[in-house]
Amino acid sequence: MSGVHGANPLRDAQDRRLPRIAGPSGLVIFGVTGDLSRKKLMPAVYDLANRGLLPPGFSLIGFARRQWEDEDFAEEVYQAVKQHARTPFREEVWQQLSQGMRFVQGDFDDHDAFETLKKTMEELDKAQGTGGNFAFYLSVPPKFFPLVVQQLKKHGLADQKDGSWRRAVIEKPFGHDLTSAKELNEIVHEVFASDQVFRIDHYLGKETVQNILALRFANTLFEPIWNRSYVDHVQITMAEDIGIGGRAGYYDGIGAARDVIQNHLLQLLALTAMEEPASFDADALASEKTKVLGAVKLPKDLGRDTVRAQYAAGWQGGERAVGYLEEEGIDPASKTDTYAAVKLEIDNRRWAGVPFYLRTGKRLGRRVTEIAVVFQRAPHSPFDHTATEELGQNALVIRVQPDEGVTMRFGSKVPGTSMEVRDVSMDFAYGESFTESSPEAYERLILDVLLGDSNLFPRTEEVERSWEILDPIEEYWDQHGKPAQYTAGTWGPAEADEMLARDGRSWRRP
Amino acid sequence: MSGVHGANPLRDAQDRRLPRIAGPSGLVIFGVTGDLSRKKLMPAVYDLANRGLLPPGFSLIGFARRQWEDEDFAEEVYQAVKQHARTPFREEVWQQLSQGMRFVQGDFDDHDAFETLKKTMEELDKAQGTGGNFAFYLSVPPKFFPLVVQQLKKHGLADQKDGSWRRAVIEKPFGHDLTSAKELNEIVHEVFASDQVFRIDHYLGKETVQNILALRFANTLFEPIWNRSYVDHVQITMAEDIGIGGRAGYYDGIGAARDVIQNHLLQLLALTAMEEPASFDADALASEKTKVLGAVKLPKDLGRDTVRAQYAAGWQGGERAVGYLEEEGIDPASKTDTYAAVKLEIDNRRWAGVPFYLRTGKRLGRRVTEIAVVFQRAPHSPFDHTATEELGQNALVIRVQPDEGVTMRFGSKVPGTSMEVRDVSMDFAYGESFTESSPEAYERLILDVLLGDSNLFPRTEEVERSWEILDPIEEYWDQHGKPAQYTAGTWGPAEADEMLARDGRSWRRP
Repeated sequence: MSGVHGANPLRDAQDRRLPRIAGPSGLVIFGVTGDLSRKKLMPAVYDLANRGLLPPGFSLIGFARRQWEDEDFAEEVYQAVKQHARTPFREEVWQQLSQGMRFVQGDFDDHDAFETLKKTMEELDKAQGTGGNFAFYLSVPPKFFPLVVQQLKKHGLADQKDGSWRRAVIEKPFGHDLTSAKELNEIVHEVFASDQVFRIDHYLGKETVQNILALRFANTLFEPIWNRSYVDHVQITMAEDIGIGGRAGYYDGIGAARDVIQNHLLQLLALTAMEEPASFDADALASEKTKVLGAVKLPKDLGRDTVRAQYAAGWQGGERAVGYLEEEGIDPASKTDTYAAVKLEIDNRRWAGVPFYLRTGKRLGRRVTEIAVVFQRAPHSPFDHTATEELGQNALVIRVQPDEGVTMRFGSKVPGTSMEVRDVSMDFAYGESFTESSPEAYERLILDVLLGDSNLFPRTEEVERSWEILDPIEEYWDQHGKPAQYTAGTWGPAEADEMLARDGRSWRRP
Repeated sequence: MSGVHGANPLRDAQDRRLPRIAGPSGLVIFGVTGDLSRKKLMPAVYDLANRGLLPPGFSLIGFARRQWEDEDFAEEVYQAVKQHARTPFREEVWQQLSQGMRFVQGDFDDHDAFETLKKTMEELDKAQGTGGNFAFYLSVPPKFFPLVVQQLKKHGLADQKDGSWRRAVIEKPFGHDLTSAKELNEIVHEVFASDQVFRIDHYLGKETVQNILALRFANTLFEPIWNRSYVDHVQITMAEDIGIGGRAGYYDGIGAARDVIQNHLLQLLALTAMEEPASFDADALASEKTKVLGAVKLPKDLGRDTVRAQYAAGWQGGERAVGYLEEEGIDPASKTDTYAAVKLEIDNRRWAGVPFYLRTGKRLGRRVTEIAVVFQRAPHSPFDHTATEELGQNALVIRVQPDEGVTMRFGSKVPGTSMEVRDVSMDFAYGESFTESSPEAYERLILDVLLGDSNLFPRTEEVERSWEILDPIEEYWDQHGKPAQYTAGTWGPAEADEMLARDGRSWRRP
């Protein structure tokens, strides 16, 4: 265990299978009237309570501008739980949980509101026994981060007195380039120490992402071939079938690379490529991830080995989809990328010369996130050429979503009297193999925050290093021409196919 | 290709996916009235014809004591095909095939009968265009091998004139120890050259057995971990649920080790453990198999690392099963083993120190043949002890029968908020992955005989080497005590479990 302040004493290194139950604590959500709060955070809190993972007096404080009383807030949470919770509704759990619900009305620059918040927290410490332990969840647009953080400081809400803890939870984007990320980090760290800050990347809360660690390091089978001697290349894909929806204001000027590659895909790359950590405590893990991100090498020719594109009008799921530039709220001259693909290499002994191809996009063929480790062909085959022409390269594919699981592709003899070899696959699906249900990513992550377990949260250095990787690409794109185009519902622009074809490879069609 | 006399010119190294069609030829079956002929050989010939893999004038001669005319024989084949063929019955195929059917009546010491056989073959050369190419299938008790082979010689039936070929097909047992095997080989090789002799081990005709070669050598994934650095041990199992049935006369005095380990299991061991051959031609393959069998090391303490046993009365499939000594036709003082387990090691760079546990038995839990490659635990796990207590060793299991396929067992994270790792498995089943139907082992092997392709037939040296491995074990058993006992329907004697337990291992329950 890292020396995290206030870590739950119930949980020690010898007892990881015991349910990890949060100690006395409460959660303050800023921006509680937003979509994320209603669809994910409130239901996750209820599901955690229902699974018995929250303390009896757990408290939930909503903070927003809306003119609500405590009862209105409780009713809002009730509706959110009814609609979005994953576990069955149980009246007694709800009753207990709602005891600790409070609402604080105010703007983020309203000092009185923060004083009210302070009093509410103190009241809950007495009424609910929260012990002064609170996490602040900043579910607010990034421009408000500095203001809220400074208010917390000014009103003494970030102070950890008498062994209690205070933690800040931040949603991406963590800046929009290295400079802004550093500014943001400075502001946050003026108020909160490094181990008090939890940056949410909800992808890292997914079972399959955590399973990368189990797959690689609890087994003997994979690690011996997990290196440049056997791996030909790695493809990491996050494809969405939807467009930008109502997020025009947020998305335009940010784009696919900043929105997805900088955080999700580089984190997946780090977990896939990192060396074995000495243990699974947060420091050891962060140290290995930072190390491998530090070894990431940008392509020499950014024009050749990166591609950005915008979706043009097309058909998807039987419906007409407009092009990105025709979307409501988008500047028709926008150069924002809705698709981005980059080729990275990792300059270390394990990976030198093995390309990692990362791609993400909206309005692609279907919604899928996967990591495909594609192996070299056998160095020599005693089979003749013809008999193996249907044999591709061996691959291990970790499916992050949907249908979480692992697939292994390899060659097998085709039944018959001749020796013909063809690709087949073995499959492991989470859903079929375990009766345990997967916790929703936010459940897992909120519990980790309350437990002070920061394994699954990217650290300052990881975030800054990721921007260091992305910034030169974004700068190059700014200075060179316009995004390519791809038809909505297809698998991206021809330029991305050409990028791999030049290397003698091709993208998977997942 | 090896320099096999009369190999089909249609089949060359560049064209392995073309159907391999036998050239002009015929098959003579000695002992054609037996079970094997009716259930396997005759149906296999029909299925091959039905798949278009036999030449138009293919001829089938039955030789036996029974007083049959050609029509009786044809009727017998017809019934066998109707009952046991795997492909649909097609009248036109049957009509064409039955044109070439003849029956020769006689004892094996009847010179006239062999003269009649000779004339029949010559007649078929003219009528059916068999071109003088004949395979002699000795589906007869081993004591008749020498007689039949010498008759073939005496009557000039083994002579290959004018580019035609003659081949001999022998069923196991190939002797009952090294001395008798050598005698048999000498007798056979007085008449037939090495490349004219085809020893049938029908296990080697099974798809999954051939797939061992494809799995290992057409892929990148497996070979890097296929050695002493990663493999803990290998278990090769052939379990039968049936007893000796009506085979008392054959079985008693032979036993499980001679009946199964000497041929099937040591062949599976050879295919699993051998080095990559330079090509898949028969000579290259035989050379690698012989090499690895030559490196097999017997256990120092045969009392400790071998077990033999007899089944005692018990229950199986809801029915009472008598003990071996109570079976009809079995000497109540018999010491014949119906179960045998041995631990072997392979003295070479790849396998030194890795035990290969072989076991076979009748009246075991269920019918299954499999090769399980069990890997070492990860040398270091960053997971703590408790979280991995349900994690076994990684394993790759090649299922030979039933339900042919491959299973990989590995550890995966258990869904939930803690890091717990548990065994899961990935599966590949032949039946689900291929629409092509697997040819029956005998189909494959008869076609190979007609094509002169001896890849799947053990050579003289392999057979003799296998007896060299088995003989000291049989001698030790002869001189030391009596077989252990196990209850019919269980997984063998306690002694076998103890044998593995002493090594800190346990048998799989397949």
